[in-house]
Amino acid sequence: MTWVTDDNAALLTDLYELTMAASYHAQDMNEPATFDLFVRALPEHRNFLIACGLEEALDYLERFNFDDEGIGYLSSLGSFSDSFLSRLGELTFSGEVRAIAEGEAVFAEEPILSVTAPLIEAQIVESFLLNCITFQTMIASKAARVAISCKGRSFVDFSLRRDHGADAGVKAARAAFVGGAAATSNVLAGAFYGIPVNGTMAHSYVMAHEDEEHAFRTFMKDCPQGTVLIIDTFDVEEGARRAARVAHELAPQGIELRGVRIDSGDLANLTRSVRKILDEADLEQTKIILSGDLDEYQIERLIADQVPVDSFGVGTQLGTSGDQPALGGVYKLVADARGPKMKLSTGKGTLPGRKQVFRVSRNGTLDHDVIGLEDEVADGRPLLDCVMKGGRRTSPPDDLTSVRERCSKSLEALPERLLALNTNGGGYEVTTSPGLKDLIDRFGSHTPPMGSS
Amino acid sequence: MTWVTDDNAALLTDLYELTMAASYHAQDMNEPATFDLFVRALPEHRNFLIACGLEEALDYLERFNFDDEGIGYLSSLGSFSDSFLSRLGELTFSGEVRAIAEGEAVFAEEPILSVTAPLIEAQIVESFLLNCITFQTMIASKAARVAISCKGRSFVDFSLRRDHGADAGVKAARAAFVGGAAATSNVLAGAFYGIPVNGTMAHSYVMAHEDEEHAFRTFMKDCPQGTVLIIDTFDVEEGARRAARVAHELAPQGIELRGVRIDSGDLANLTRSVRKILDEADLEQTKIILSGDLDEYQIERLIADQVPVDSFGVGTQLGTSGDQPALGGVYKLVADARGPKMKLSTGKGTLPGRKQVFRVSRNGTLDHDVIGLEDEVADGRPLLDCVMKGGRRTSPPDDLTSVRERCSKSLEALPERLLALNTNGGGYEVTTSPGLKDLIDRFGSHTPPMGSS
Repeated sequence: MTWVTDDNAALLTDLYELTMAASYHAQDMNEPATFDLFVRALPEHRNFLIACGLEEALDYLERFNFDDEGIGYLSSLGSFSDSFLSRLGELTFSGEVRAIAEGEAVFAEEPILSVTAPLIEAQIVESFLLNCITFQTMIASKAARVAISCKGRSFVDFSLRRDHGADAGVKAARAAFVGGAAATSNVLAGAFYGIPVNGTMAHSYVMAHEDEEHAFRTFMKDCPQGTVLIIDTFDVEEGARRAARVAHELAPQGIELRGVRIDSGDLANLTRSVRKILDEADLEQTKIILSGDLDEYQIERLIADQVPVDSFGVGTQLGTSGDQPALGGVYKLVADARGPKMKLSTGKGTLPGRKQVFRVSRNGTLDHDVIGLEDEVADGRPLLDCVMKGGRRTSPPDDLTSVRERCSKSLEALPERLLALNTNGGGYEVTTSPGLKDLIDRFGSHTPPMGSS
Repeated sequence: MTWVTDDNAALLTDLYELTMAASYHAQDMNEPATFDLFVRALPEHRNFLIACGLEEALDYLERFNFDDEGIGYLSSLGSFSDSFLSRLGELTFSGEVRAIAEGEAVFAEEPILSVTAPLIEAQIVESFLLNCITFQTMIASKAARVAISCKGRSFVDFSLRRDHGADAGVKAARAAFVGGAAATSNVLAGAFYGIPVNGTMAHSYVMAHEDEEHAFRTFMKDCPQGTVLIIDTFDVEEGARRAARVAHELAPQGIELRGVRIDSGDLANLTRSVRKILDEADLEQTKIILSGDLDEYQIERLIADQVPVDSFGVGTQLGTSGDQPALGGVYKLVADARGPKMKLSTGKGTLPGRKQVFRVSRNGTLDHDVIGLEDEVADGRPLLDCVMKGGRRTSPPDDLTSVRERCSKSLEALPERLLALNTNGGGYEVTTSPGLKDLIDRFGSHTPPMGSS
């Protein structure tokens, strides 16, 4: 079967990375170069991003190598010299990585990751790093929006079945947890990352039984821990009454109905009816969980309408970042042995030089960021930390729960206007430092690539 | 590192599948059941889908098992009985799969895959099958739209960096190839599936050199096979003139400039200028390749405007199916030991029973499909074939090139109106057979879930 693993991940790159590397090899061009990975502009409707994916990126870099099978395949293409192929066979990643921590809020043009390594290494890892960081950052950012819309209620990642493949399944669950999901339905993600796993029941279970009430009774007896019954297989209100009857019947056995789930229909009105049915049956403690292609916009509306919902299952829209399914991450050469570099393509310029991002807060709330040069002295908290040196991590991986807490604190520190689901309040100010401005001027660009973000 | 592999793929499921399976186990409910995997409604702007992902689904089913580590994790959750856990430890997939071949056009409500297996097995594999089939079908369908928009010109999958994770990278490349891409930039996808790999050069290569002309000269010498130069790092027209100069300089050495790539700016006008510059330099054979967040709509417009472009690199929009990043695939119980099943949830009903899809053509063009019962006799080509029996494939995997040809023939057989990028021409007719209608009536539904598609 065709799985990406440590053994073949180095080959998960675009052919041109290897073609360019072959030329660098032929030219003996392998001085250290610095590439910044950043997002040119925030996607529509986004006021911020949540950095995510760094741990996987570092895992990849630490284990980076081409195995014999990979070299054999490259050789079969007939376009690489033996000298280059044997060089590749010995290649590891020996460089330095500076990065913004996972869970931290980031904005356009800010390097999420900055790689300094011999040119050949730095070039070949581009495709994987972009794939890994931009996808996970996109999902963590989406999850943070869902968390904001939930206003303290919990939500669970239900996205596995609509995620883009197997790896996206586990990575989306991880990124969703970082962004604020309480749990995931994805068992493997639970096993990999220690994320709480959570689940209810499907319509098929109800349909596999004689009738709904029989299905409810059996499920509650067999799975008595925190049972949630799905009540929309036939008729939601009838389902709620049946669930209530079974709950009363089984209460003497100590089995409690934790919740009911509604997955279709007019969720607002059905939730109100079901709440009434449950309350009238003295089941005030029984929660109502909503699902069914929900996103942060619908959740915001349900809560604004005071729908008595307790929590949400969010799938497709979370795991695919449905309204913005791609993040325009780029990985650009900003410095090499001859100094800072700057690309001037129309609309696709880059900020030159090795940088630092300084975050300036006032009274615990973010005020603005300054993108400056690495060695500049400036106010504010520097966000880019050295996380890898000589191809090895400088410290053990962050605990995922602490990453999640970092994200939660990041969101708390955002100015109120950035917590809206729209961008009407105006963006966040990101400026360039005097040192960076001077450097840009030296490249003779009259239109620096960045306005305010 | 946390990769999905054969050893842990069984755990890539939603927790509720296992909770339900635990209850089936406790109740000794394990009679064979049939689940259909289908799409309820075509996404907006889609006139058809291209079935894709079956090979991976069959690989997964053939290798399905829980290893000791997986069972250990499930045991640690504290919600499963030892009896169920030891049952899981021995579980393999022993069922039957009937499916529509990869590359075939499919429509709403048509089972792409139909699984008949002991209830516990059939239930647990749901999440993976949905993830695998809906993602790949979505990308193959998007690729087919891009192929249609290209009107005979070639396009290459450039999506790796924006795909949703590592597995999506290789699977998107495969699905794109099925849908009509000539090649992929993704080296690992080339190694896995034998897809032609293809690539040009990046801006960073130009920037790593003293100047653009020097970069062009070096690249053409070092990579003389089918060289494509990227000409928009600084100024496109100037880049084209430099490329032409270097091409003339190196022509005596037998090095040919195959093409130039433009990745930014006003692509239509720049392509016209560049074509003129190349033609005036007697480089009529040098191709122009366009890229830069292209999709089928932009390609259609460029070609309608008679822009002299030769081929396209399509990335983000192809690999994420940007305008429709999720496909609403579902997996529904349609029959069990007690006979056909039908779910009636509002807007989420299902067609009951074990089915066959009959495709009726007239003069080589598709006319309509009929969804009928498996044992019904009807006109038209039956699309669902038995591809797995007793948990083993009934025949070796299809060769990927023949799958791609099947897709190409499917597209050729579509009525003209379905080849539009919009749905203004009206959809394709999918009806239910007399036998299926009778069965629906027996469930007393006055509103069968399906209209015309």
